[in-house]
Amino acid sequence: MDFEEYLKKKRKIIDRALDEYLPEEKKEPKLLHRAMRYSIFAGGKRLRPIIAISSFEAVGGKGKVILPVACALEMIHTYSLIHDDLPCMDDDDLRRGKPTLHKIHGEGMAVLTGDALHALAFELLLKAKNFQVIQEVAKAIGTEGMIGGQVKDLEAEGRKVSLKQVEYIHTHKTGKLLKASIRAGAILGNADNKRLKALSAYGEKFGLAFQIMDDILDIVGEERVLGKKRGSDKANSKATYPAVVGLEKSRGIAYSLLKEAKESLRIFQEKSWVFEKLADYVYARIV
Amino acid sequence: MDFEEYLKKKRKIIDRALDEYLPEEKKEPKLLHRAMRYSIFAGGKRLRPIIAISSFEAVGGKGKVILPVACALEMIHTYSLIHDDLPCMDDDDLRRGKPTLHKIHGEGMAVLTGDALHALAFELLLKAKNFQVIQEVAKAIGTEGMIGGQVKDLEAEGRKVSLKQVEYIHTHKTGKLLKASIRAGAILGNADNKRLKALSAYGEKFGLAFQIMDDILDIVGEERVLGKKRGSDKANSKATYPAVVGLEKSRGIAYSLLKEAKESLRIFQEKSWVFEKLADYVYARIV
Repeated sequence: MDFEEYLKKKRKIIDRALDEYLPEEKKEPKLLHRAMRYSIFAGGKRLRPIIAISSFEAVGGKGKVILPVACALEMIHTYSLIHDDLPCMDDDDLRRGKPTLHKIHGEGMAVLTGDALHALAFELLLKAKNFQVIQEVAKAIGTEGMIGGQVKDLEAEGRKVSLKQVEYIHTHKTGKLLKASIRAGAILGNADNKRLKALSAYGEKFGLAFQIMDDILDIVGEERVLGKKRGSDKANSKATYPAVVGLEKSRGIAYSLLKEAKESLRIFQEKSWVFEKLADYVYARIV
Repeated sequence: MDFEEYLKKKRKIIDRALDEYLPEEKKEPKLLHRAMRYSIFAGGKRLRPIIAISSFEAVGGKGKVILPVACALEMIHTYSLIHDDLPCMDDDDLRRGKPTLHKIHGEGMAVLTGDALHALAFELLLKAKNFQVIQEVAKAIGTEGMIGGQVKDLEAEGRKVSLKQVEYIHTHKTGKLLKASIRAGAILGNADNKRLKALSAYGEKFGLAFQIMDDILDIVGEERVLGKKRGSDKANSKATYPAVVGLEKSRGIAYSLLKEAKESLRIFQEKSWVFEKLADYVYARIV
């Protein structure tokens, strides 16, 4: 199958499931349900759910048990973006080409909507009835994961940071959830140890490369593609790879990481074609 | 045992467990771990963990499986307070007699600290290895529970509300988590259906009465006991029972609810003495 077509097909399945799992707008509290749906359906590449489903299928997983988990990952990602966009954090007015949630419903509602998606994500994770998966996701978004990275990111603003520090921020803020996504799929698909390890290695390297490319795109990308203002990292004095090692070296690091990521999946042979394509796309920054 | 002594003993056990489960301050990200500990140890009655443990023991539960769940409930409560105190929500400077978290570490850190406690709570809930307990807690703090109530509370600010609306706010914002606390203890203690039902009925009525007494205390309480400024509900034009039905009628409703709550536990005979005392204390507003 063509990779573009593959992505489109998966996104359709994911969006249908998200629609099913999100509370209806006509149900009280309507304003909250509307806000949750606005943020989830404001766009988004569905990268984490696609990774989870692809990992699940790559190890031979069958059935729909992965779907609520995949949707939970997207909800967690979206909750983190809503909180991240708040004036007290990155203060972004645009996200995925649309006004950020607090611009429409106010900051209080944005805080609560993020919290609601966070809680709903755990309700969905429970549907798969797998303690390890919930445990790994919970850890990946806690103080040793996503939130830990966000705190360090916040602390670093306006300060001179080392390569080690920006690596910490990126691997935690973005990397841990991406790695948890690929692992969740593999675990639910009953991967053997060798395959789980290989996919984890891919997830780790891919996650860091993805955030480095995100840094690069913030400098060289087109606003139409970005869905937000270019140069916002620099304006906010954020800790980024280009700020620390320059644009070209950042690109080189990302390239090496993605190459290593692909190599770690050799045991899968043609069954990992999706992840190879994904790495190429991230480098070209199409997804 | 004397009830005061009982509460003191339980709080000691809970505080020791909270200290064990919270990441150490000397571990990175230090600022985040310090902030989490500040908010958890800034005081607090430990009502939810006490209720969970007491329910667990009332149905004959043995061992320590309830402890991580009890601590998770306190972390969820604390996360909700941190977010609730933000300038974009209730804008409180004091909580439990101490400066609120955003006053010390800024709003961004307060948002993230709440998020970190939220995620850690689920890690702790997992330790009991009981899907039903996690499911009930997740639901109780989601759009049909705590967050639903908070959203309606936010929407009601400055508006005239009906008794039905303020009942919705109180049963959701405060009641659902209290009810989930008593149910979590009962489920983990392997309660039979009759006892689980009885404790649920207590939790529901107790939860509403507790919030009504909280409204009343905001008007008549001493600031020394409150740990925050008196009259903040009125200043914020919050939806409260006294605002809708007056002080005396509010007291009457709370009294009836607490009486019914106690009556629902008759099958426990003397084994539910803690819950009877608790109801009396809440009415006298000592706890």
